[in-house]
Amino acid sequence: MIRLTLAQLVDQLGGDLYGSPDIEITGLATLASASQHDLAFLSNAQYRSQLQTSRAACVVVSTPMKDEALKRGSTLVTDDAYAYWARLTQYWASLISPADEPKIHPSAFVHPLAKIDPTARIGPMCVVEAHAVIGKRSWLKSRVTVSRSCTVGEDCILHSGVVIGADGFGFALENGTWLKIEQLGSVRIGNQVEIGANSCIDRGALGDTVIEDGVKLDNLIQIGHNVHVGAHTAMAGCVGIAGSSRIGAHCTLGGGAIVLGHLQLTDHVHISAASVVTHSLLNPGTYSGVFPIDTNDAWHKNAATLRQLYSLRERIKHLESGNPK
Amino acid sequence: MIRLTLAQLVDQLGGDLYGSPDIEITGLATLASASQHDLAFLSNAQYRSQLQTSRAACVVVSTPMKDEALKRGSTLVTDDAYAYWARLTQYWASLISPADEPKIHPSAFVHPLAKIDPTARIGPMCVVEAHAVIGKRSWLKSRVTVSRSCTVGEDCILHSGVVIGADGFGFALENGTWLKIEQLGSVRIGNQVEIGANSCIDRGALGDTVIEDGVKLDNLIQIGHNVHVGAHTAMAGCVGIAGSSRIGAHCTLGGGAIVLGHLQLTDHVHISAASVVTHSLLNPGTYSGVFPIDTNDAWHKNAATLRQLYSLRERIKHLESGNPK
Amino acid sequence: MIRLTLAQLVDQLGGDLYGSPDIEITGLATLASASQHDLAFLSNAQYRSQLQTSRAACVVVSTPMKDEALKRGSTLVTDDAYAYWARLTQYWASLISPADEPKIHPSAFVHPLAKIDPTARIGPMCVVEAHAVIGKRSWLKSRVTVSRSCTVGEDCILHSGVVIGADGFGFALENGTWLKIEQLGSVRIGNQVEIGANSCIDRGALGDTVIEDGVKLDNLIQIGHNVHVGAHTAMAGCVGIAGSSRIGAHCTLGGGAIVLGHLQLTDHVHISAASVVTHSLLNPGTYSGVFPIDTNDAWHKNAATLRQLYSLRERIKHLESGNPK
Repeated sequence: MIRLTLAQLVDQLGGDLYGSPDIEITGLATLASASQHDLAFLSNAQYRSQLQTSRAACVVVSTPMKDEALKRGSTLVTDDAYAYWARLTQYWASLISPADEPKIHPSAFVHPLAKIDPTARIGPMCVVEAHAVIGKRSWLKSRVTVSRSCTVGEDCILHSGVVIGADGFGFALENGTWLKIEQLGSVRIGNQVEIGANSCIDRGALGDTVIEDGVKLDNLIQIGHNVHVGAHTAMAGCVGIAGSSRIGAHCTLGGGAIVLGHLQLTDHVHISAASVVTHSLLNPGTYSGVFPIDTNDAWHKNAATLRQLYSLRERIKHLESGNPK
Repeated sequence: MIRLTLAQLVDQLGGDLYGSPDIEITGLATLASASQHDLAFLSNAQYRSQLQTSRAACVVVSTPMKDEALKRGSTLVTDDAYAYWARLTQYWASLISPADEPKIHPSAFVHPLAKIDPTARIGPMCVVEAHAVIGKRSWLKSRVTVSRSCTVGEDCILHSGVVIGADGFGFALENGTWLKIEQLGSVRIGNQVEIGANSCIDRGALGDTVIEDGVKLDNLIQIGHNVHVGAHTAMAGCVGIAGSSRIGAHCTLGGGAIVLGHLQLTDHVHISAASVVTHSLLNPGTYSGVFPIDTNDAWHKNAATLRQLYSLRERIKHLESGNPK
Repeated sequence: MIRLTLAQLVDQLGGDLYGSPDIEITGLATLASASQHDLAFLSNAQYRSQLQTSRAACVVVSTPMKDEALKRGSTLVTDDAYAYWARLTQYWASLISPADEPKIHPSAFVHPLAKIDPTARIGPMCVVEAHAVIGKRSWLKSRVTVSRSCTVGEDCILHSGVVIGADGFGFALENGTWLKIEQLGSVRIGNQVEIGANSCIDRGALGDTVIEDGVKLDNLIQIGHNVHVGAHTAMAGCVGIAGSSRIGAHCTLGGGAIVLGHLQLTDHVHISAASVVTHSLLNPGTYSGVFPIDTNDAWHKNAATLRQLYSLRERIKHLESGNPK
């Protein structure tokens, strides 16, 4: 079990402590679930009502919450409680992670022509093919495939089941049958990229598929061949990006969103969950397109009417022309 | 080949047999495809028209179908033909499954600190990490990952490619870059849970992600961190549940449905396929929200008009005020 | 490095060369990115403007583009430039692929009762269960599962993470709990089928799930039990086909499309990306159904109005009856 005084914590991560530095912390928790040996945090105003009744040993808050938090008791004040909490979880994880894991698990298959940095970690049942490159401190969890000639930068995390560099979906139609277009490009992944479980990034047809620094992808995401994802863009689970699309930097895509092929999204574009991007979006902003959910009966009536929408518009035009019938 | 008399079958599973107990069955089949050595069943009235022409050796029906079925010939009558059929397939599968498979396949990697019940079965290329727990008679098919500290209850089936306990998607934004929030919780899975191929259940950020008893998940499903899925809820393929949502008991979600984060669905909520749940649903019932499919031309006209829908409403209001223009 | 003269290439693949046969090619590239040692191609008129400025050593074009291409320089003219290019990539890939890879990787698990053709190739960490059959020249890349009794035809490619023959999603509801219906059928895959990374094809409940010759499936696709996919049909990433649906031959499904269960799509049906097929489509043609994406503000207004669409129609009817209020 981990046991840290608040003094040790502040020593490590900074922050202004109001309360005894000798209090010992044995866990991290939410305001609502914290016991008297846990550290908790408040960053989302939505949870403010839970502050006063929290049993936490100490609460991390941002400066504007300081006075309110002090009424409760021991408080750790920082500029940005959520960023502080992120660093705290990282520190905590470093204390509990076993140091003795092998760098390359004996069950992994690493091709002799792959280049694995000695500080990288390759988990059980991973497959790293010829000429693939894995950078410093990057971590392939269990059952990850990095295919021939694909490169993964530094400080990346690839979760279980990820497939980097499967063939892009390229075929030429000839007399009703599909001829395979061999995918001769590869995948280049930058630094500090995280890719969720069972997500797939296809290799390029001629050029490469590119994922820039700091990109974060959730689980079960599909990135088609020759897609380019700009730095620090984040995508939630089940997103699909079709081939040759170019996603800008600092974008976010909600879960289940689909981007069609050969489109461009400029920087700072935000797509709502489950929306389908059918044309390029060249202005920053938030875009949505999802059928509103309703009771099944109400949906049925509205959906049926929707199929006559164009003719309803014509009927309105006709009414506006002054003819009731 | 399996060869069972109807007498042996009734002995094992019950039911009232009308016809010779000595008829031998060598297979299970649909009404339409059954040969004269097959047992078939009728539970869905939709297939009633196939009853009289079926060549099956015997047909399992529910009591209300008894008279109609007897006109054809050998019949096995039960309270609930579909439930009877389910048990029959289970019995049949037990007869054909080889008994000599190893409990833990030699190619699997099981961490020495994992706890595997001696009756559990771990298939080829599985990965079970430290402190994970696998309960009685649970079966991990090939290439399943159960990550550190995650627990799987009794009588569960995890299909190939499942990933339990990858990191939840948690990051704090600081100056345009994403800081990782280490995911310190785990995943707790109850009893009689089945999880389909390549589905993912993420570990919690602080508390745990919880899947209660009897939950059935199809393939390629994404369950975000700290989600709670109530008992006996079923989800079809490609569903995504975003973080911290709470799905009630006895719910069903159709294929491709998406539930946004931090929502609550009460018990007995049913979501139609491909619908997107954007707010909590606190009343039982069926909910839908999907754009009706149409010929491409009709869709184009209606979709274009949909983008003017609000202004059409304003024009109707104006007309109602008595002004034609 | 590969080094081929245009003469050698024409010798291998045909086409009419206009220019020196002694020019050496060391790579394949797009018009825009080609260096003077690369071969490029033009098949999509959209890229015509890049022709004259391309630095490519030679450009492959279809006959109608011949005169325009000759103005630039060395040109290879064929009936169908895209099909020619497909064969060229295949030839190129055959030159760079190492010949010394083992047919069955030592890390794969192949059950002694599986039948693997001696020309088939089974990659690292694959699992091929009892009575499965893998046909001539088929290639399972890394971490593929082919379950008990499933058959894969000739010249197929199964990409990493594919799961063939997991249990279909079949349960009978009895007193609020789900009884498993054992899936006693299997999966039959024809010849020249390609299946993308982490896609899943479930085994049938009684009969088999069938994928006919020449079908091409992209990544993260879910095919339910007892689905039948007709020859030469192609599906883009993230598509889901629910159980017992029958998809015709020569169909295409865009990324993220969903087809509900027990439906029929006739031959030559084309479904736009992210559309949801809720009823059978018995006429060839293109079908769509996706909410148009818009700025979040515009979407909000239109989506809110959509929930009153039926009552708007009633108000139009009322206006048409001659009563302004």
